[in-house]
Amino acid sequence: MQGNRENSKGSHNEESVSTEFGCRRAQGPDGALSGSKYSFCGCDFTSNVYASYLYDIPILGTMSHSFISSFHNTEKLISNLLDNHDFVSIINKNKNIVHKLYDCKYTNESELIAFSAFAQINPKNFICLIDTYDTLKSGIYNFLIVALSLYEINYKPIGIRIDSGDLRSLTNECKNIFNDISQKLNVPFNQLKICVSNDINQKIINYLNEEQNHIDIFAIGTNLITCQSQPSLGLVYKLVQINNAPCFKMTNENKKSNLPYQKNVYRIYTDQQFATLDYIQLYNEQPPILNQQTISINIHDEWKQTIIIPKKIEQKLCLIWKYGKSLITFKNIYDLKKYTQSEINNFKNEHFKTVSPVPYPVLFSDTYHKVYKDLLIKNSHINQ
Amino acid sequence: MQGNRENSKGSHNEESVSTEFGCRRAQGPDGALSGSKYSFCGCDFTSNVYASYLYDIPILGTMSHSFISSFHNTEKLISNLLDNHDFVSIINKNKNIVHKLYDCKYTNESELIAFSAFAQINPKNFICLIDTYDTLKSGIYNFLIVALSLYEINYKPIGIRIDSGDLRSLTNECKNIFNDISQKLNVPFNQLKICVSNDINQKIINYLNEEQNHIDIFAIGTNLITCQSQPSLGLVYKLVQINNAPCFKMTNENKKSNLPYQKNVYRIYTDQQFATLDYIQLYNEQPPILNQQTISINIHDEWKQTIIIPKKIEQKLCLIWKYGKSLITFKNIYDLKKYTQSEINNFKNEHFKTVSPVPYPVLFSDTYHKVYKDLLIKNSHINQ
Repeated sequence: MQGNRENSKGSHNEESVSTEFGCRRAQGPDGALSGSKYSFCGCDFTSNVYASYLYDIPILGTMSHSFISSFHNTEKLISNLLDNHDFVSIINKNKNIVHKLYDCKYTNESELIAFSAFAQINPKNFICLIDTYDTLKSGIYNFLIVALSLYEINYKPIGIRIDSGDLRSLTNECKNIFNDISQKLNVPFNQLKICVSNDINQKIINYLNEEQNHIDIFAIGTNLITCQSQPSLGLVYKLVQINNAPCFKMTNENKKSNLPYQKNVYRIYTDQQFATLDYIQLYNEQPPILNQQTISINIHDEWKQTIIIPKKIEQKLCLIWKYGKSLITFKNIYDLKKYTQSEINNFKNEHFKTVSPVPYPVLFSDTYHKVYKDLLIKNSHINQ
Repeated sequence: MQGNRENSKGSHNEESVSTEFGCRRAQGPDGALSGSKYSFCGCDFTSNVYASYLYDIPILGTMSHSFISSFHNTEKLISNLLDNHDFVSIINKNKNIVHKLYDCKYTNESELIAFSAFAQINPKNFICLIDTYDTLKSGIYNFLIVALSLYEINYKPIGIRIDSGDLRSLTNECKNIFNDISQKLNVPFNQLKICVSNDINQKIINYLNEEQNHIDIFAIGTNLITCQSQPSLGLVYKLVQINNAPCFKMTNENKKSNLPYQKNVYRIYTDQQFATLDYIQLYNEQPPILNQQTISINIHDEWKQTIIIPKKIEQKLCLIWKYGKSLITFKNIYDLKKYTQSEINNFKNEHFKTVSPVPYPVLFSDTYHKVYKDLLIKNSHINQ
């Protein structure tokens, strides 16, 4: 989600979208399904066919390298036809055209046969993986030959995917060729989509976006379905109160202590645009009031005080389970996507920087600070 | 698996075992089940109750911090009894004994009540999490009180788990106390087990094993179920041959190329103890012969030649699927564990070092090298 936001905010190509391609690297079938489902909050497509079926997420995919390398120069296509057209003749004619326009002496003939076979079964979803042999010396020209042939019989080819090499220079070169052939042959190939894959992560997206690029689709697999930097969700849940008594867990490590007592959480805006801080108080305290001075305290950092005047207040903590019954209705993934993206927009960009992000402040009420401190003193003998 | 091996080879405590504790951090329910199942190859227990039920893996667990922090000084136990004994009276008697032997002025009374309640429902599986308040000032003494009480009525307490703090010094201190009370009260508490958890990984195990320690059980969770250093399995599978023709995938990146043609793989030993190299040749080549010179070649590193004389040869590649049917019977996890551990023992320790491990050599036959080189030259024009 953050990746997508950074991408859409920092990109030179404002239209670029991302698609989830992680299925084969997921931890088991339901790991893949969960990954596909929740990555829809930030992505626009999935390559996971079953997730698309279950959750109605738009699907996007291409062919595999093995599909292409299973073809050899020697065999013929099963049929020459596409619909009622002699597709092979049309391809041969367009092959002559493309070979006259560009330097095609190194194109791989078996790749052209593979693309042709793929077009025959997927004329409406023609997106080719063009780096099996050589992106700029073979794949791009074989794609053009078949794409021109489809266009000639009124299909709309979608585009290309590149899965290796220097994605920035390769995609820029492909875009130049698309623009060039559009002019030369008067075809709308400047609108063809360019998709990149190959271990795409935040760092690579940042690198690609540093300069002009024409990437339309980032296909993100391994780094989305199995996070490199945080492979497990590093959160804890702790018992904080039972039968009206606070539960305090001290331990020998500060970060594994808990925050005792039942609490309320408010997100406070000191202007109308961006969230300023999250404010935690005891459950039965008077909530913060609009336009009135509120003292907030950092209980973990020498009890620093901050005085704030809320201009907007959102209650953030809600009861989900009560006596074994769920009190909320879960959003469907389309509402979840909308909600997630609107929530992210409430935060300043500085919190999303990949290098030295500014931590979002979480502060406490004066009253909570007092009862917390009391409890700490009461239990402190054991930490002497 | 490697962790376990390193652990058992380098440890000062040769008897230590490991247990899989990762369920709550796994990627979904079947991610947890797969993790529990396959980690049994290296671990001896699981905390995953359903995996234990399905795969018959021995189970090991303790209580949660929330169980302990749900008790307060104020309440009483529901019953004073364990079997027909007045358990609370026995505990009070042993409390006096322990408080006279050790400095117990900071012990937490609610923790003692929690351990007592736990003993009442788990007298045969009494293993206590002793770091909720303070390991050495509270947890260890409360454990001793209840453990002595159980021992008195003929139950065998199992031991302790520590989940925070400096695990080396804390466990050494606890072992001293166990040895001390064994002598003073003539009880076999020097045999009590000491289990540690808290983000245990290879590095922490190495650190703990650098000096004397008395850790019996390493409980490994997050770092086993979600690997920090390689959260996805970084392998590729590629089409290598179809209809007797080789499939060659070049790409703009060397590491994403494939090794064409159907092949055979042999593990070769030049002595009887450790595997020397894996040797790959074409499927229809004459296999290497015992005690006869064999030339093996590194096709990726300037075609270096190595001459070897095999003393033992194992065929390693086997056909698993044929026309949609599985040709093998999968081992059960006990056989898999035995097989994995015996396979690991066939390799030199140098390949398992966590710092600068020596790569295990994978070399090729002269014939395979020739056909690979031919294919490379035939396709090399597209990489010019």
